[in-house]
Amino acid sequence: MAAATTTAFEFPIRIYWEDTDAGGIVYNANYLKFFERARTEWLRSLGINQGALRAARGGIFVVSSASLRFLRPARLDDELIATAALEKAGSAMLQISQQVLRRQGADLQARQVCCEGSVRVAWVSASSFKPARIPVDIVQRLSP
Amino acid sequence: MAAATTTAFEFPIRIYWEDTDAGGIVYNANYLKFFERARTEWLRSLGINQGALRAARGGIFVVSSASLRFLRPARLDDELIATAALEKAGSAMLQISQQVLRRQGADLQARQVCCEGSVRVAWVSASSFKPARIPVDIVQRLSP
Amino acid sequence: MAAATTTAFEFPIRIYWEDTDAGGIVYNANYLKFFERARTEWLRSLGINQGALRAARGGIFVVSSASLRFLRPARLDDELIATAALEKAGSAMLQISQQVLRRQGADLQARQVCCEGSVRVAWVSASSFKPARIPVDIVQRLSP
Amino acid sequence: MAAATTTAFEFPIRIYWEDTDAGGIVYNANYLKFFERARTEWLRSLGINQGALRAARGGIFVVSSASLRFLRPARLDDELIATAALEKAGSAMLQISQQVLRRQGADLQARQVCCEGSVRVAWVSASSFKPARIPVDIVQRLSP
Repeated sequence: MAAATTTAFEFPIRIYWEDTDAGGIVYNANYLKFFERARTEWLRSLGINQGALRAARGGIFVVSSASLRFLRPARLDDELIATAALEKAGSAMLQISQQVLRRQGADLQARQVCCEGSVRVAWVSASSFKPARIPVDIVQRLSP
Repeated sequence: MAAATTTAFEFPIRIYWEDTDAGGIVYNANYLKFFERARTEWLRSLGINQGALRAARGGIFVVSSASLRFLRPARLDDELIATAALEKAGSAMLQISQQVLRRQGADLQARQVCCEGSVRVAWVSASSFKPARIPVDIVQRLSP
Repeated sequence: MAAATTTAFEFPIRIYWEDTDAGGIVYNANYLKFFERARTEWLRSLGINQGALRAARGGIFVVSSASLRFLRPARLDDELIATAALEKAGSAMLQISQQVLRRQGADLQARQVCCEGSVRVAWVSASSFKPARIPVDIVQRLSP
Repeated sequence: MAAATTTAFEFPIRIYWEDTDAGGIVYNANYLKFFERARTEWLRSLGINQGALRAARGGIFVVSSASLRFLRPARLDDELIATAALEKAGSAMLQISQQVLRRQGADLQARQVCCEGSVRVAWVSASSFKPARIPVDIVQRLSP
């Protein structure tokens, strides 16, 4: 996945009190939120607005599976980077590789991985939640 | 409000990692969640199920204003009590007095107030969010 | 894992507004919270209180990896069951199999899986977050 | 409060799935999070970093009271603005006026208020949570 990583979409995440827990670190479930923010902004950067998409097509992307590895704790005031890179696009699902990174020292390129994982989203009817084919023009925008 | 307080509906709230922040205490916004759980269970105890209500009547209760005073911090593993007591019922809104309490020592009646406040909920159309009159049978169930 | 499933610890989860999203279903990240509530209550049922443990031993369990499959949407007012079953116990980590289930109809035994997954927790120093051996008496309480 | 409003600190807030509920709108408790993000960034803009402050001085700001009025629902994908303006600074507390605004149409100056309120924060010991005087240099930075 080296190629995918170099071209990953990046989105800044600042850590607030709301994101932390009594262990003094970012609460584990919040990384799924950060992953979703990065996916949403990646789609937006491709001209895909999920709210408008639901209104126009009656469908939404829902997470069908996710895996996460928590490698280093992040803390209050940290300025992180959440990434999203398309791993695989099927007719009804997308597999997206994601990371949450922290800059390390003064070198802007030096980064530590706080959390990394993979998220699969399926396209479903917004009313019945039944899986459906992703609209063709959406798939085309996702293609490199 | 002494009379209302003695008859307040009570609902247990256990504190998990998700509820705390890096200060080591329950994060402030979460008390609004605890208040809502208590209001929801108070309504349920009166036979009012909000999901079913929306499906049947097309309306929902939304919070129109809230005030909170944070008096003592709560912590991981605390077993709290959230209360809800009707202060005032209008034709289109309810004013509810709420507390989050912690037992103090062995005396089951001795309690400290962690947070207290007042929440006003309005009845609105679930589609347009325009204010409307609360259905009469709902008002009747709320009357003592 | 059939054997483990039959002996899984079970904990009730009620769905409130706070748990849902604009898709009308439970937001994906919240299942990690439900998993944690079940793990916490499972540990508590074995006499292990995480807050007291940190104060006494200076260590905490942190999630080191998690995988989730989202099988069916859950909704407002749903009364779910979150489970936790020990899959594997190492000297420094526990692997726990987890599910979020919904009762199906009147048969108390008939259940649908909303979400299932596996969570690995590591025992770390609460100050340095360096991995350490789980205290022996904790491991003993976890053994069947 | 016209004068205070014109000089309020402003911080952008994008609405993601995590922020919404099954009513299709932003969940009420999340406005307290948005208020906190704006206060945190306002303090940061004055050179006050809360994490560093706790490490150096042993104190933190905690919310002691809050009031909110919910005027218009916000929705998925909305790009909002959260504001913070100092109303009053005491020796041990700050009173901050806050709003969450939404741009209206093409006119960048035309804005609707989604939520507005006032938050009081107290300076307390990070270990005992006892109130204390705000360090003098912090008060000085807050003065106009």
